[in-house]
Amino acid sequence: MSQTEYSLQENTSITDFSKRFETIRNYTEHLCSNFSEDDHMLQADFFVSPPKWHLAHTTWFFEEMILKSNGKNYEIFDETFSLLFNSYYETIGKRIARDKRHLISRPSLKEALAFRSHVNSGMKQLIENGASKELLELAELGLQHEQQHQELLLTDLKYSLYQSPMYPNVSKTIDLVGQKNTEAGWLEVEEGIYEIGHTGKEFCFDNEMGQHRVFLEPFQFRKSLVTNGEFIEFMESGGYEQFKHWHDEGWAWIQGNEIAKPLYWQKVNDVWHQYTYNGLRPVNPEEILTHISFFEAAAFAQWKGMRLPTEFEWEAASNHFHWGDRWEWTNSAYLAYPGFKTSEGAVGEYNGKFMINQMVLRGASKATSQSHSRKTYRNFFPTDARWQCTGIRLAK
Amino acid sequence: MSQTEYSLQENTSITDFSKRFETIRNYTEHLCSNFSEDDHMLQADFFVSPPKWHLAHTTWFFEEMILKSNGKNYEIFDETFSLLFNSYYETIGKRIARDKRHLISRPSLKEALAFRSHVNSGMKQLIENGASKELLELAELGLQHEQQHQELLLTDLKYSLYQSPMYPNVSKTIDLVGQKNTEAGWLEVEEGIYEIGHTGKEFCFDNEMGQHRVFLEPFQFRKSLVTNGEFIEFMESGGYEQFKHWHDEGWAWIQGNEIAKPLYWQKVNDVWHQYTYNGLRPVNPEEILTHISFFEAAAFAQWKGMRLPTEFEWEAASNHFHWGDRWEWTNSAYLAYPGFKTSEGAVGEYNGKFMINQMVLRGASKATSQSHSRKTYRNFFPTDARWQCTGIRLAK
Amino acid sequence: MSQTEYSLQENTSITDFSKRFETIRNYTEHLCSNFSEDDHMLQADFFVSPPKWHLAHTTWFFEEMILKSNGKNYEIFDETFSLLFNSYYETIGKRIARDKRHLISRPSLKEALAFRSHVNSGMKQLIENGASKELLELAELGLQHEQQHQELLLTDLKYSLYQSPMYPNVSKTIDLVGQKNTEAGWLEVEEGIYEIGHTGKEFCFDNEMGQHRVFLEPFQFRKSLVTNGEFIEFMESGGYEQFKHWHDEGWAWIQGNEIAKPLYWQKVNDVWHQYTYNGLRPVNPEEILTHISFFEAAAFAQWKGMRLPTEFEWEAASNHFHWGDRWEWTNSAYLAYPGFKTSEGAVGEYNGKFMINQMVLRGASKATSQSHSRKTYRNFFPTDARWQCTGIRLAK
Amino acid sequence: MSQTEYSLQENTSITDFSKRFETIRNYTEHLCSNFSEDDHMLQADFFVSPPKWHLAHTTWFFEEMILKSNGKNYEIFDETFSLLFNSYYETIGKRIARDKRHLISRPSLKEALAFRSHVNSGMKQLIENGASKELLELAELGLQHEQQHQELLLTDLKYSLYQSPMYPNVSKTIDLVGQKNTEAGWLEVEEGIYEIGHTGKEFCFDNEMGQHRVFLEPFQFRKSLVTNGEFIEFMESGGYEQFKHWHDEGWAWIQGNEIAKPLYWQKVNDVWHQYTYNGLRPVNPEEILTHISFFEAAAFAQWKGMRLPTEFEWEAASNHFHWGDRWEWTNSAYLAYPGFKTSEGAVGEYNGKFMINQMVLRGASKATSQSHSRKTYRNFFPTDARWQCTGIRLAK
Repeated sequence: MSQTEYSLQENTSITDFSKRFETIRNYTEHLCSNFSEDDHMLQADFFVSPPKWHLAHTTWFFEEMILKSNGKNYEIFDETFSLLFNSYYETIGKRIARDKRHLISRPSLKEALAFRSHVNSGMKQLIENGASKELLELAELGLQHEQQHQELLLTDLKYSLYQSPMYPNVSKTIDLVGQKNTEAGWLEVEEGIYEIGHTGKEFCFDNEMGQHRVFLEPFQFRKSLVTNGEFIEFMESGGYEQFKHWHDEGWAWIQGNEIAKPLYWQKVNDVWHQYTYNGLRPVNPEEILTHISFFEAAAFAQWKGMRLPTEFEWEAASNHFHWGDRWEWTNSAYLAYPGFKTSEGAVGEYNGKFMINQMVLRGASKATSQSHSRKTYRNFFPTDARWQCTGIRLAK
Repeated sequence: MSQTEYSLQENTSITDFSKRFETIRNYTEHLCSNFSEDDHMLQADFFVSPPKWHLAHTTWFFEEMILKSNGKNYEIFDETFSLLFNSYYETIGKRIARDKRHLISRPSLKEALAFRSHVNSGMKQLIENGASKELLELAELGLQHEQQHQELLLTDLKYSLYQSPMYPNVSKTIDLVGQKNTEAGWLEVEEGIYEIGHTGKEFCFDNEMGQHRVFLEPFQFRKSLVTNGEFIEFMESGGYEQFKHWHDEGWAWIQGNEIAKPLYWQKVNDVWHQYTYNGLRPVNPEEILTHISFFEAAAFAQWKGMRLPTEFEWEAASNHFHWGDRWEWTNSAYLAYPGFKTSEGAVGEYNGKFMINQMVLRGASKATSQSHSRKTYRNFFPTDARWQCTGIRLAK
Repeated sequence: MSQTEYSLQENTSITDFSKRFETIRNYTEHLCSNFSEDDHMLQADFFVSPPKWHLAHTTWFFEEMILKSNGKNYEIFDETFSLLFNSYYETIGKRIARDKRHLISRPSLKEALAFRSHVNSGMKQLIENGASKELLELAELGLQHEQQHQELLLTDLKYSLYQSPMYPNVSKTIDLVGQKNTEAGWLEVEEGIYEIGHTGKEFCFDNEMGQHRVFLEPFQFRKSLVTNGEFIEFMESGGYEQFKHWHDEGWAWIQGNEIAKPLYWQKVNDVWHQYTYNGLRPVNPEEILTHISFFEAAAFAQWKGMRLPTEFEWEAASNHFHWGDRWEWTNSAYLAYPGFKTSEGAVGEYNGKFMINQMVLRGASKATSQSHSRKTYRNFFPTDARWQCTGIRLAK
Repeated sequence: MSQTEYSLQENTSITDFSKRFETIRNYTEHLCSNFSEDDHMLQADFFVSPPKWHLAHTTWFFEEMILKSNGKNYEIFDETFSLLFNSYYETIGKRIARDKRHLISRPSLKEALAFRSHVNSGMKQLIENGASKELLELAELGLQHEQQHQELLLTDLKYSLYQSPMYPNVSKTIDLVGQKNTEAGWLEVEEGIYEIGHTGKEFCFDNEMGQHRVFLEPFQFRKSLVTNGEFIEFMESGGYEQFKHWHDEGWAWIQGNEIAKPLYWQKVNDVWHQYTYNGLRPVNPEEILTHISFFEAAAFAQWKGMRLPTEFEWEAASNHFHWGDRWEWTNSAYLAYPGFKTSEGAVGEYNGKFMINQMVLRGASKATSQSHSRKTYRNFFPTDARWQCTGIRLAK
């Protein structure tokens, strides 16, 4: 976020903001109440983090970025947390290696929750004592950051739980996969110059800013997302065995990792099942496909004789179809918009430094907070990432 | 190349084509005449190939794609070459692993040259006996393919020779690095809709086709390429030690590989030297920088407070500055143009399957044949590739 | 253990055995009472296991090997544990990968302890209802196995805790490193034929059996173990920088892993410190060195102009010096004694299959239960292992 | 070799030695005359070397160790060879990485042969002008070293040629595999103290010296080596699929590398074939098995209910059976004999530094010069090495 450009909406009262702060912070703990204490320690790979770490890291953001320099009378909860719960901010100093977060047994979960309370009090005091607009904007960034981690918390833990041969049934209420399409048919979009990027006074990340014009050739856009049933067709027609559908790098990836099905799918007695927070259950062909990589999305589209939309097409069409069930892979590389500038200091590390070798996803998923969704949002992941709630939108 | 769209120019006579065939084919052997027999076996890494392999593989293209099905009375030189000298065409069958090309001791260099002669005769006969337009177009693709390999032959062998602690002096005439800028100042380019992509009847690859409109915001474009002297400034100001200039992935790359200078640079008695075909020689600060990765190019631009141009900006400006000394990294990902279609069969594997996780380079280098240069040409390499004759163009 | 050869001592009463069972089982839980719940989840590398896993795996042994087939009315605690807590017994079926034990969040610690209680009751009933001699012998093997894991529990967790940059202070009572030599001088041992291997009716592992004769040339044996102070001398004289002291493979190992000090050593303000269960504390030069690999032990001996003893020399001399402070690296490879036979079934996997590319350690450490020490005991580890409480004995 | 202990035989005349020098040196070139120029560049893995490198490295030994300091008027052939053709002597200085020997295109093969001539002349002059006994002993070590490389030259190149999908037929005269047993039955050897190690004035390596006494329990020793037919039985009975025959590390090795047959074996039309210097040919069940690892040898013996002999048993029995067809894996780790001392200087690196994590092989193979065979010879390789001409001897 570039603080100089983003402004809290004029009419945001301190009371509203304070309430919003509390709501979002509490929601993280609410999510975690589904998990056991030991679940909070799980980290199955370098790219996921344990829930305890998410709880503490999102809190660290407020202490490190705001309270340390602005909280009069604020007492640092524990000096060592600055190092333990830094994620990737090189400006701030040494970090523990990303794949070693599961090795933090101290603080305990109880202490991590106490850290949250302590920082919440500090923030509440700061906000209610009349924080400056700049501080509120930074606090807003902290809340947006926390909402991102709420989503990661769900997708990361799902990935870690899946490594257990027991496929534990952890929650009946968390449902990331059981959605169906509500629309059908194709949207026809005309050629022309479209305005792309964020406008208005509401919050957005730095990567969405810099509204600019993009010329689009005419295109068609499918209103429904690809279903499990359609993907099973692809699999049964040999989709994973024919290199002609695949990028060269995607082909090497499926060969090297023996990939022949979406993440979390297993055949049980010859029936496709998928792991969910509710344990292993049959794949419903009418539900929307999820947990596939960009490589698989692109191969599917190629097999279908179609293509993935660009992020510009997606945004130009976004008012005319239902979205929000899956993060939708686009065929746009994650790169800077014209005029993109990096902010000074640690918050400047937020987005720009990841603008290479990743693809943009548009939309939102069932793990995304509704207040964290907007049509200009640019999510991004490497081409082999599958543990997010990703899906396929077709264009032609 | 999509054969259905490209057409040999109306006025190309058979005689002209036959002559052009001979000229280009001879040029490959002319290049190789600089090297010793054992040089022809060198392969230092999976991404480079031995000269003997280049000699045979470019020939394989004509035998496999043209003579096998079209050469009446043509006798296959050696059945085993189909497997030995296939590069990445999955359609055609088994290949030897890319990093094992240095393990082909048989055929010998002499036999590889005999294979060239044999195929040249077959092709000459085919052409002069009145080949169809389709065949000539396929032969033209073979020549363009050979010109690509002529460049690789030079850059690959340089990379392999460099692994020897002797830094052998191999040729006085091959000079890939000793060029200086001939222009200075900045070009101002206005906003507007620009036509991008190849038009006309001359040859182009499939990835350049599909002319389309792109809207560009106004931009500035530096006429001179970055020099060695400018890059030394970057290095001396700590450019390789400050993460703030780098992409996150670039930073991991320089840390993990202990990279702190362009490829082929070595300090000798505290003076920067670079390896060339003429052995190790001092770096001239006025010469144009080369052999740097996209990561380094982007970090340099960031350090300078500027940026790399997009490939569309480059093409839109291409008539107004001197280019051809270096392959210029752009900040555009290598992706399909609107309407891009893959050809059927083996030639369809040419470009599309590489359209992911690579960046576009525009221009040409001193290793590129002049008849292989055009302003719509889209070269592409991964972000850490440094062994090509790459350089930095700045924009803002 | 080969059940056919080992016999419970004639005079072991059921009551004594039952008491012994309880004592050893309780001791594991007593050790764990030093650790937090989250400590029980830690696994820093494939070769260490989390405490929770040790608690359950040692219990699994009794359920799997004894109660499942012999416990009348015994109810299996949880069918899934057979897979979750198998270590390396291929006979028994699928296992979870060794490096993924930290991903078992379910069962919880509380459930793991309940599993222990349940199995303890089952075993107690079985024993007290008059188990056969064969069963008691198998139960004895289970207890010996548990004692091995008690030691691993301490050394594994120390290794995992050390990965935290906080170097947590976990226990004031566990002291694995603060021992000093009580003897000095050299033992002279005469040439001759010595009887090597276990005799008598007491328990031993299969690898100690097969008493046999070994001819030893005369040798000298140092009574004291190498101290931290002596090792600091080695380091300060450049011991880690001079290849001439090292095995070729050891040299590659220290180069490749940038090793230049014993495990757990750190310089703080230019003073050597070592990590202990009590946190980071200064290295005392008079204490006995520990946590070094075979490679380091051998290099030290070479630097000193001496050598490590063989395991036969060690056993031949074992009545004439004090041992039990460290596991002492010998220069003997871990191989079968003459006449070694593998038992049938799962217990047969105990020792024989590890008899390659490991070196024998003799003695015992402060992490070893006294009732688990004997002079014929053959411990073994790969040449780069450092996380056990290993030390150096010199011979010449 | 420890020069102080070995002495040239009293009756070795200068003329005899000079002749012997010439014979052995010429034999290396004779072997190479079977290969093409490009064959001389092949290196398929880090553990094999190209023939050109063997030619130059064996010559380097004489220049570096003898002529540089002792050859009056000797002119160094090329200063750079000191670095290029050093193998593993850390004392002498920088080396090129072991897996990059195939990247030495300069010198050419012709120059390498000229280097041999030049050094041969230098040596001849030195010898014939009356070299000291010390120098002759060092020259003898150079010849023994060259004989070792003659064997490696054959086994290394076979391995590299095998990587080509063409399985080239290179020589009709080199036959490493077509031998049959000439003896049958079992040898019974009595218990007792046996003298082990080299005696007498003839050359031996340092690792054979230090004659010492070993007590052996009674054992039986099979006179014939295991045949291809016997090994096919093992394979057909599921030998590679049953972990109970295997060391734990061996099992991981066959699983991780998908190994289910000896090196160089391929099924062609359902018939076992093996690659030889004469191309791919059917496996003859009566011929002696070769190209198997220690892991496979041990698993075979275990399957058979027998075991591999120790190196001491082998040596004690060596006068009573025919040997010399295969290097025979023993169940002895390669460790120092009592009293082993490393020589000073570069020659001291010869053997001692490899005494870890390797197993001893006794005997000799059809690639070994007869004048390089003796019953005390201790060859050694890691447990997964298969490219030598190894075989299986059974004991019980």
